[in-house]
Amino acid sequence: MSVPLNRKSLQYLWNSIDCFLLDCDGVVWRGNIPIPGAAAAIDLMKRNGKRVILVTNNSTKGPPQYVEKCRRLGISVSTQNDIVTSSRVASIYLKNMPNRTGKVYVLGGQGLGSELKAANVEHFGIGPDYTDKQTVLDDQSVDVQLESNVFAVLVGFDRYICYNKLVKAASYLKNEKCLFFATNDDAFFPSESSQIALPGAGCIVQAVSYSSQRMPVVLGKPHTPMFEYVRDELKVDPKRAMMIGDWPPTDIRFAKRNGMASMLVLSGNATLEDAQKPKEQEMMADFYCNSLKTLCDLENV
Amino acid sequence: MSVPLNRKSLQYLWNSIDCFLLDCDGVVWRGNIPIPGAAAAIDLMKRNGKRVILVTNNSTKGPPQYVEKCRRLGISVSTQNDIVTSSRVASIYLKNMPNRTGKVYVLGGQGLGSELKAANVEHFGIGPDYTDKQTVLDDQSVDVQLESNVFAVLVGFDRYICYNKLVKAASYLKNEKCLFFATNDDAFFPSESSQIALPGAGCIVQAVSYSSQRMPVVLGKPHTPMFEYVRDELKVDPKRAMMIGDWPPTDIRFAKRNGMASMLVLSGNATLEDAQKPKEQEMMADFYCNSLKTLCDLENV
Repeated sequence: MSVPLNRKSLQYLWNSIDCFLLDCDGVVWRGNIPIPGAAAAIDLMKRNGKRVILVTNNSTKGPPQYVEKCRRLGISVSTQNDIVTSSRVASIYLKNMPNRTGKVYVLGGQGLGSELKAANVEHFGIGPDYTDKQTVLDDQSVDVQLESNVFAVLVGFDRYICYNKLVKAASYLKNEKCLFFATNDDAFFPSESSQIALPGAGCIVQAVSYSSQRMPVVLGKPHTPMFEYVRDELKVDPKRAMMIGDWPPTDIRFAKRNGMASMLVLSGNATLEDAQKPKEQEMMADFYCNSLKTLCDLENV
Repeated sequence: MSVPLNRKSLQYLWNSIDCFLLDCDGVVWRGNIPIPGAAAAIDLMKRNGKRVILVTNNSTKGPPQYVEKCRRLGISVSTQNDIVTSSRVASIYLKNMPNRTGKVYVLGGQGLGSELKAANVEHFGIGPDYTDKQTVLDDQSVDVQLESNVFAVLVGFDRYICYNKLVKAASYLKNEKCLFFATNDDAFFPSESSQIALPGAGCIVQAVSYSSQRMPVVLGKPHTPMFEYVRDELKVDPKRAMMIGDWPPTDIRFAKRNGMASMLVLSGNATLEDAQKPKEQEMMADFYCNSLKTLCDLENV
């Protein structure tokens, strides 16, 4: 059973956890608005000598942009090592592949491109790739040129998703030797509007996967590569770490699969029912609370 | 066991089948090139007093365009009643919905739009919907306006697929009362090039389905609505009909699920192994042959 955080269990956390991994959207902020109490809770963690690392599946930015965002929102996270993004994980993963030669075809944005560039991973495909309106026939006819020496397709969130890009991704993946990676498989972004749904990278991944009849290696939460980055690059000991997130299928699963403690906060996508009656065992957090602010409230009682 | 067509079984077909339903791409033509012998086989069927109906999941055109294509390629199919397209099935399906009010948001092309218009189904969304390059932030921010009174989202093949369209489809589908239809769920089109993969409507359907966490009613083969159109609108008796196709997961399943005889031709996507060792019982055709030309060859022995 997932238990509501109380003073006693908070004391247990201070004793048994060295590193708090925080999901961002829905936990620390919502879009560009800080979640009340989150900054104070992070300060509290730090005063208790804890390491705080933000962990996001969002591939549209890299750690440098998040450091800047934290500064802007008054979140005391100051170095790139305090931030893990799926764009960074993807770049380091590709960089570390042994015997890698060739280029990566990328469906993704500038933030992913910057990370790949910083990791010296040769890549192409970022930016618009629309066929001119005048030359499009209302049919499946295309006029795309394929590059040679493409060893992998990497699919992230691409604001410029279009048919040419789907054709290219599926065409490269016809070659069985061409690898297939996804930064993450999130279905949507948290939206600031209750009317608007914002499809996430996972939707583009689904489209490419279905057309190529292939399954990608997914790098972000809840999958292993992001955990390995946290463990190996950031030297976090999972037995002394806790993942705090707002979305059981990614955040809580990420903790469970990788031997970390977990806490669900209700300041984002999850409801009280998700906390009390999760659909799967893998989604049952060890603890839950309303928001990060609860930590401060309990500390000050 | 699926049996190779021979003279004896062909005679059986002439006796027991009144109507041959032919898939198009891979059976009658490949892209814009007629498959050798297909036209002659259709003539042979007609000389034997059989009805011949082309049945395609392709939603980019309507029956009028296919009548024209048949004329161009020398295929003796002369009226719209000889052609079934998923665009036509979708339009008649929506037209026949009782108590229908409001508009349909469509991801699809001009051919689908023409069919909807002919059926007096109010719709919008066809054509490019790209946000201007200059105003796109490299993020999930969008600037879309939602229309009111949208009772359904219909997803077909859309050459202009883009993020704004995915946002709109997923946003309309947040409303549980908004219905979700797909013209078909084909993963790809047959491609004239071995290098190029052409993702089909199914990929776009997958993206919308994943972001909205909803499953569509799929109208095309192998699903029921296209069969009901054939049975009810075209008055075909399934017990006296045979589906001939090149793709077991759609064509042969379509026959099996709806009580029709089936034959797999190897002139398109399927291999001899698909005929002899199908992955599922539902994909095992009653008969198979190299191509429609086999019928002429057997007749002339």
